[in-house]
Amino acid sequence: MHLTGTMKINNRGHLEIGNVDSLELVRDFGTPLWVIDEAGLRQNCRSLKQAFARLGESLVIYAGKALCTSAICRVIADEGLGLDVVSGGELYTAVKAGFPAEKIFFHGNNKSREEIVMAVQAGTGRIVVDNFYELKLLDTICAELGRKQDILLRITPGVEAHTHEYIQTGQIDSKFGFTLPDGQAMEGVIEALSRENVNLVGLHCHIGSQIFAMSSFQYTASIMMDFMAEVKKRAGYELDELDMGGGFGIYYYPGDEICDPEDWAEAVMLTVEAKAGELGIKRPRVIVEPGRSIAGSAGITLYTAGSVKEVTGIRKYLAVDGGMGDNIRPALYGSQYSAVIANRAAEEPAEKVSIAGKCCESGDMLIWDAELPPVNPGDIIAVFATGAYNYTMSSNYNRLPRPAMVLVNNGSADLILKRESYEDLIRNDIIPGRLGKEINADPSVWNLHSCNKVGPRIT
Amino acid sequence: MHLTGTMKINNRGHLEIGNVDSLELVRDFGTPLWVIDEAGLRQNCRSLKQAFARLGESLVIYAGKALCTSAICRVIADEGLGLDVVSGGELYTAVKAGFPAEKIFFHGNNKSREEIVMAVQAGTGRIVVDNFYELKLLDTICAELGRKQDILLRITPGVEAHTHEYIQTGQIDSKFGFTLPDGQAMEGVIEALSRENVNLVGLHCHIGSQIFAMSSFQYTASIMMDFMAEVKKRAGYELDELDMGGGFGIYYYPGDEICDPEDWAEAVMLTVEAKAGELGIKRPRVIVEPGRSIAGSAGITLYTAGSVKEVTGIRKYLAVDGGMGDNIRPALYGSQYSAVIANRAAEEPAEKVSIAGKCCESGDMLIWDAELPPVNPGDIIAVFATGAYNYTMSSNYNRLPRPAMVLVNNGSADLILKRESYEDLIRNDIIPGRLGKEINADPSVWNLHSCNKVGPRIT
Repeated sequence: MHLTGTMKINNRGHLEIGNVDSLELVRDFGTPLWVIDEAGLRQNCRSLKQAFARLGESLVIYAGKALCTSAICRVIADEGLGLDVVSGGELYTAVKAGFPAEKIFFHGNNKSREEIVMAVQAGTGRIVVDNFYELKLLDTICAELGRKQDILLRITPGVEAHTHEYIQTGQIDSKFGFTLPDGQAMEGVIEALSRENVNLVGLHCHIGSQIFAMSSFQYTASIMMDFMAEVKKRAGYELDELDMGGGFGIYYYPGDEICDPEDWAEAVMLTVEAKAGELGIKRPRVIVEPGRSIAGSAGITLYTAGSVKEVTGIRKYLAVDGGMGDNIRPALYGSQYSAVIANRAAEEPAEKVSIAGKCCESGDMLIWDAELPPVNPGDIIAVFATGAYNYTMSSNYNRLPRPAMVLVNNGSADLILKRESYEDLIRNDIIPGRLGKEINADPSVWNLHSCNKVGPRIT
Repeated sequence: MHLTGTMKINNRGHLEIGNVDSLELVRDFGTPLWVIDEAGLRQNCRSLKQAFARLGESLVIYAGKALCTSAICRVIADEGLGLDVVSGGELYTAVKAGFPAEKIFFHGNNKSREEIVMAVQAGTGRIVVDNFYELKLLDTICAELGRKQDILLRITPGVEAHTHEYIQTGQIDSKFGFTLPDGQAMEGVIEALSRENVNLVGLHCHIGSQIFAMSSFQYTASIMMDFMAEVKKRAGYELDELDMGGGFGIYYYPGDEICDPEDWAEAVMLTVEAKAGELGIKRPRVIVEPGRSIAGSAGITLYTAGSVKEVTGIRKYLAVDGGMGDNIRPALYGSQYSAVIANRAAEEPAEKVSIAGKCCESGDMLIWDAELPPVNPGDIIAVFATGAYNYTMSSNYNRLPRPAMVLVNNGSADLILKRESYEDLIRNDIIPGRLGKEINADPSVWNLHSCNKVGPRIT
């Protein structure tokens, strides 16, 4: 069991998070339930911020696509981080929550005109321009609005990082960015410098996700610095910022490494410093965009165990009251998670059990062959490291309402995302008049708002 | 181009559906837009219903997990089909839309107590019991409510169908159902017969999705009939119904077969009839549960093309204003789709272009190497066969609002699902007081409700 942040097993043998007994969370908020450990989230922000700040001028911007709600934006702002948004919806959420616009970076391979207008009007700190089409569109919009926008250009450096290694590809085949090896990147820089309504501040790159090999970051920083020197030489222009993207790996499952933010900071910052000296260019301010490494470990999901099925001699299945609707990652990426029985967290594992979701789809399996104490219907299952890319990728598949989310801290739990109701599911439905009037439906007899809220089996 | 239902190319060279020009749909409803061809949907219902009815007593029940909204439920009810629901949310939607409860079948491997209570109280026609745990729970609930519930038992027959073949496995490793080969199925039947508050009407099985080999259905029907004869022999009880599940394949992409409902009906109905005679048992009423083969071909998605990127000598990327948020299937299953430029639908393909979504994720690609006429920003891209498992699996990943859906018929278009607004995205968000008051956000300057609604480039 890999407990992070404030998670621990309390003297009743229950999993505790934010000094709140997980069984109390289940009693008060029902299941499935996303739980975010505020202290853990803040600690992840601070470790990253300090690791980079110690080594030079830098800005850590949180990648909102990992977990973006109004309250989370508020916590991130409070920690002094910037924010990376990738859509009008994320920008709207952040600004409405009071996130300072000047610390927002706006990404995306296909920003719409409306999104760009929103971003410029909101005073977004940087728009990270992805391609020539967008560069022209942004310049036009800025001219219309009478604004000059600070931008970075997204460069595709020809490095692709895998979990434990990197590959240098001659010309990388990606929908993102200005490709470096074929000259588009330089062309993009020159074009950006020629546009009157944008101000080219620096460059951005991103080489992948769940990266554990620090050499991937070193290598990429080195390539980007070479390119910055080339820009100085060719265009006579020194860039102020280098945004190295995200991708810092986290622990999900036995076998995954536990990485230290200091290692990432050193890999990037020391390379940038050394290359600046070597190339005779100024050392740029470094930006990094962690998402998973801030939100991932800070979140757990609580489920109630339901039906148990033994396939004789083959496997034991335990079904929980959520699944691919609230965590698509096992089905989508083959991601592995670890779990514990929250109401008997101190018990030793005694059997292998495969944790199934409740969607009508064979692929809806959360964990194959988890090692758990003997599990029974009514037990509460806690799945770890679900803070990132669970809520943000969640769906209403099988028309399951999406779970609630609570932020726990110092013994108190605050609801930060209301559980969807059945009414929410049909909120946007319309029945055209020509399909006839509503008939005979009287669902008012049902106790609708407590759907999915079931009592735990406290042992 | 594989045009189905009412789709055609009109004399302006535009894609037309339900006698409505797709460009008019874009003008009136914006993009991305899900469009459902009502006549095509109804035709799919009728073909299936007639194909089975012609060969004996049967009921076609539409699998709502493919596409379930209030208006769709109304159309399905109007066509006289039954409905297969897999959650309280689907049941709620259907009953609230006036779907006759007695024609609803309730599936699922982990129905909650609340869902079962809802289903029993609503007068659901059949509850398809998945496992021993549920059987006991249902019996208890029925006793509490003073109701006797008609049920089927879900049997796992030991047949697994793949696209063009089937595999017989000794003991199938699945989270679903009472396993046949190890004796659980017979045990389940005997247990169900002994329970006072349920009425065992028949058996259910489901062997997979996108099945093109009719021999898979024949073989499964044969195994299930053998088991029904065994039940008669062992328990002295003749079952009335055999639910053969769904899985009938549809055309998505060149290379996929185009299947005739008559073939499915014959494979199932003739096998059941022959086996009944051979085994000396009564011929059961047959139920089938098509979802994809009713909704799939009836739907298209319209997108607006945005940025275009050429990676020299490698690939041309075109990004649209939707992606894995509204269609997760390419990323999740590697599903292939075909597309056309709706505003120049009559033009010959001239180049290969890969259609990317707008999510900040490399995996967000809708179609690799589509053969299209030269495509430009502002063109309208229509992707075919998106009626099933697109809306129902959709997410707000990257906090993109989910698209609107229109039902087109006979020259008119009715909105049946409102486009999500940015306000919808934060509707359930709560900021706890201790995180401070809202500050400086004035997003009222933004024209929020027309987000994602862009004018088409009509040529």
